[in-house]
Amino acid sequence: MVVVERIQEMKDIVKKLRKEGKTIGFVPTMGYLHEGHLSLVRKSKSQNDITIMSIFVNPIQFGPNEDYDRYPRDFERDKNLAEKEGVDYVFYPSVKEMYPDDFKTVVSVKKITDIMCGKSRPGHFDGVATVVLKLFNIVNPDRAYFGQKDAQQLVVIKQMVKDLNLDVEIVPCPIVREEDGLAMSSRNTYLSGDERKSATVLYRALNLAKDLIEKGERNVSKLKKAMEDLILKEKYTRIDYIEFVNYDTFEPISKVEGKVLIALAVFVGTTRLIDNIVVEV
Amino acid sequence: MVVVERIQEMKDIVKKLRKEGKTIGFVPTMGYLHEGHLSLVRKSKSQNDITIMSIFVNPIQFGPNEDYDRYPRDFERDKNLAEKEGVDYVFYPSVKEMYPDDFKTVVSVKKITDIMCGKSRPGHFDGVATVVLKLFNIVNPDRAYFGQKDAQQLVVIKQMVKDLNLDVEIVPCPIVREEDGLAMSSRNTYLSGDERKSATVLYRALNLAKDLIEKGERNVSKLKKAMEDLILKEKYTRIDYIEFVNYDTFEPISKVEGKVLIALAVFVGTTRLIDNIVVEV
Repeated sequence: MVVVERIQEMKDIVKKLRKEGKTIGFVPTMGYLHEGHLSLVRKSKSQNDITIMSIFVNPIQFGPNEDYDRYPRDFERDKNLAEKEGVDYVFYPSVKEMYPDDFKTVVSVKKITDIMCGKSRPGHFDGVATVVLKLFNIVNPDRAYFGQKDAQQLVVIKQMVKDLNLDVEIVPCPIVREEDGLAMSSRNTYLSGDERKSATVLYRALNLAKDLIEKGERNVSKLKKAMEDLILKEKYTRIDYIEFVNYDTFEPISKVEGKVLIALAVFVGTTRLIDNIVVEV
Repeated sequence: MVVVERIQEMKDIVKKLRKEGKTIGFVPTMGYLHEGHLSLVRKSKSQNDITIMSIFVNPIQFGPNEDYDRYPRDFERDKNLAEKEGVDYVFYPSVKEMYPDDFKTVVSVKKITDIMCGKSRPGHFDGVATVVLKLFNIVNPDRAYFGQKDAQQLVVIKQMVKDLNLDVEIVPCPIVREEDGLAMSSRNTYLSGDERKSATVLYRALNLAKDLIEKGERNVSKLKKAMEDLILKEKYTRIDYIEFVNYDTFEPISKVEGKVLIALAVFVGTTRLIDNIVVEV
């Protein structure tokens, strides 16, 4: 496995691989790898000749009062995990390399970013779209792998790829969960022992909604209320949002119909966690 | 010469050309071709195996009260001119093809768009950056050719290419002028006979500033005042802006020093014209 820190070097490697006719799978990450990331690597390896992983904690997708500085980082650990999993290249640029002092360009995907995480974290998805476009231009992949956990991110990236006429195929991968249902996230390391117990309530609330829907409930207000009650019974919790959207249009709905994404963000202590499920009726 | 109307077809052609090892030069235009455009084609043909021209009047770079609807269009004429000049492919997409109903992405280059045309035409350069990025992704050129007349556009495109890690080389080409000095522009067709005479004042004002600088004047306020006086003596004129900026940083200056771009926009009747020169002291 080769670690590449410079953009031009990464581009030169990719150009050579392309000339040799190799297909390239790309797994963009912010590091502090967990099973979720590794499942993306496995998927990429099953579909491409070469797998490139990027590890870059992207400053411009964090708000001024968010956790950019304390976001967990451990490159040696990540490098070992990536190597064991069979990653061919790790692209590991510095912030200066990605954003030189005179950097001035922003990529925005409108409308679908007005709700959910886009509403709670202004500018977040501009930062995501901008860095992902840069990474796509550097790595030039045939396919790129994203976890369903960041459901809105996935929709934003797909829209950007379509709108900007990029050739990369976006491959969504299922959420990987701990045994008790908590969706894997690098941010889970922030949780204290007690908070960690409370954190299972996100997935339980999603499953509660699913059960109620299976029993015939279609009213989104009532479903939200039931989820809220369950979440707020738990210690340390504060709800950021609970949202029901049409799976295809990403527009909020008031009645459950067709394919629906149920998504939520909950603070457990000071840690903001997200999760989601898809239901179809 | 082949006319291509569909994005996927253009992409397929480009992919084939690339496989054959051909280099591609790209000349993006809004059509209604004049000598300025054709000079870009000649430059492209001298540097590349294949020259692709796009003809697309890009709606999203026009403001709500601007001239999108009346912008001159004559595809048959353009096609003949392009063919005579040796263009290999004309990419001529519809608005629906470029911007389907669910289009949501905007590319913005910040700061350097806060002045001059960016200030007078809010959103204009977002529209330019977005369409040029789309076109680059469709045509995948080695080199792209832009006229110096749109000096700010050139700086915006260069910045975007650098920031987004694109591989295309941006080739600036000199302004082509009528015999009396008027910079060529598709919008010159809007001018009545009398307005056409007044319109030469843009270039005369730029040359006045150049002469005064050669004689030792360095004070930008005084230089602007002299240009204003000359322009307002002319009939039908209304000044949009006169700006002196550092050629490299594109920051407004108050004292002429080093390489300087002098740019102006003037309404002649209802027609907004732009022009610029570079001076070095």
